[in-house]
Amino acid sequence: MSFFPAALDNLVEKFASLPGVGFKSAQRLAFYILSLPEGEAKDFADAIYEARNSVRCCSVCQNLTDTDVCAICRSPARNAKLVCVVQSPKDVAAIERAREYNGRYHVLHGVISPMNHIGPDDIRVKELVDRVAQGDIEEVIMALNPDTEGETTAKYISRLIKPFGVKVTRLAHGLPAGASLEFVDDATIGQAIDGRQEM
Amino acid sequence: MSFFPAALDNLVEKFASLPGVGFKSAQRLAFYILSLPEGEAKDFADAIYEARNSVRCCSVCQNLTDTDVCAICRSPARNAKLVCVVQSPKDVAAIERAREYNGRYHVLHGVISPMNHIGPDDIRVKELVDRVAQGDIEEVIMALNPDTEGETTAKYISRLIKPFGVKVTRLAHGLPAGASLEFVDDATIGQAIDGRQEM
Repeated sequence: MSFFPAALDNLVEKFASLPGVGFKSAQRLAFYILSLPEGEAKDFADAIYEARNSVRCCSVCQNLTDTDVCAICRSPARNAKLVCVVQSPKDVAAIERAREYNGRYHVLHGVISPMNHIGPDDIRVKELVDRVAQGDIEEVIMALNPDTEGETTAKYISRLIKPFGVKVTRLAHGLPAGASLEFVDDATIGQAIDGRQEM
Repeated sequence: MSFFPAALDNLVEKFASLPGVGFKSAQRLAFYILSLPEGEAKDFADAIYEARNSVRCCSVCQNLTDTDVCAICRSPARNAKLVCVVQSPKDVAAIERAREYNGRYHVLHGVISPMNHIGPDDIRVKELVDRVAQGDIEEVIMALNPDTEGETTAKYISRLIKPFGVKVTRLAHGLPAGASLEFVDDATIGQAIDGRQEM
């Protein structure tokens, strides 16, 4: 039984439904909302509504966008023959921050994960195959996380798109910048040795 | 520089403005909102708007309510001659849960705290004095936290309302239920000895 007004209980419940927010935190956040000036609370509500309604997936690369097609797919300055496949929009942001890549993207919105009942049909694989099938793409770079699920997904996709004659590459694995050999894990050192390059 | 749609950045910023929510958490929450069915995202936005607009302070006891006056102040079953003074609406909920108290409340919405520049005029002291001045109240129970700020506030209020001939009491201090003497702090043991009762 609660001793707060129904609207407050409802807000606490909503906050508690967010991932990683427990009941006590939800209560704290709800009380904070009550303490806001009315305009700011309204802005918060509008921001949720607005984000959910205006943000969608680009019909080409599946990245989040508020225009269709997205700014990267639209830009004539980007190399349309090069596509970088990533797991999530956050990865696009990470690669863009590095200012090294000038091609387009394809966001899968997940990776194949039998443990979590996520198969190829649950992520945007078909959309990628369709893009490759159109024949304008020369190279697809797999930029998935270097873990079991990422590797599995990369191999699966690679098998699907190679028949179209596209070159499939993946990000180099090895020592991260600034690493200290002493503290790098065995798997990374092994990959760095395997992938050694002539100087 | 951000690489997300503006509406998403805006939502991340709003979440990050909440107390105890950092940038990475805010980003996680905003992405979660995007993943919700449209109806649920709208419900969330509405819950914020609704809570902020329908919840106000009871004009008598200052507790949060969506009716004026609140259910407790309105109830003929509660003893109107007994008022329990608490720091926040959460304390009302805590006392109600104990099902021991049958009087009304007065919520201060804070305690006097010179360190945080909160003086008597910043909390609902005047409203309490006005209630007591009307003459219908026989006993005021101070149920503030047993720390320096709570004690100071209780003493300050006590001095203000005693001249009206009202009885002022405070919650008993001593061992919490189920405590193990071995692990109880010195101050609590001292208070339990001071306040010892005949069996």
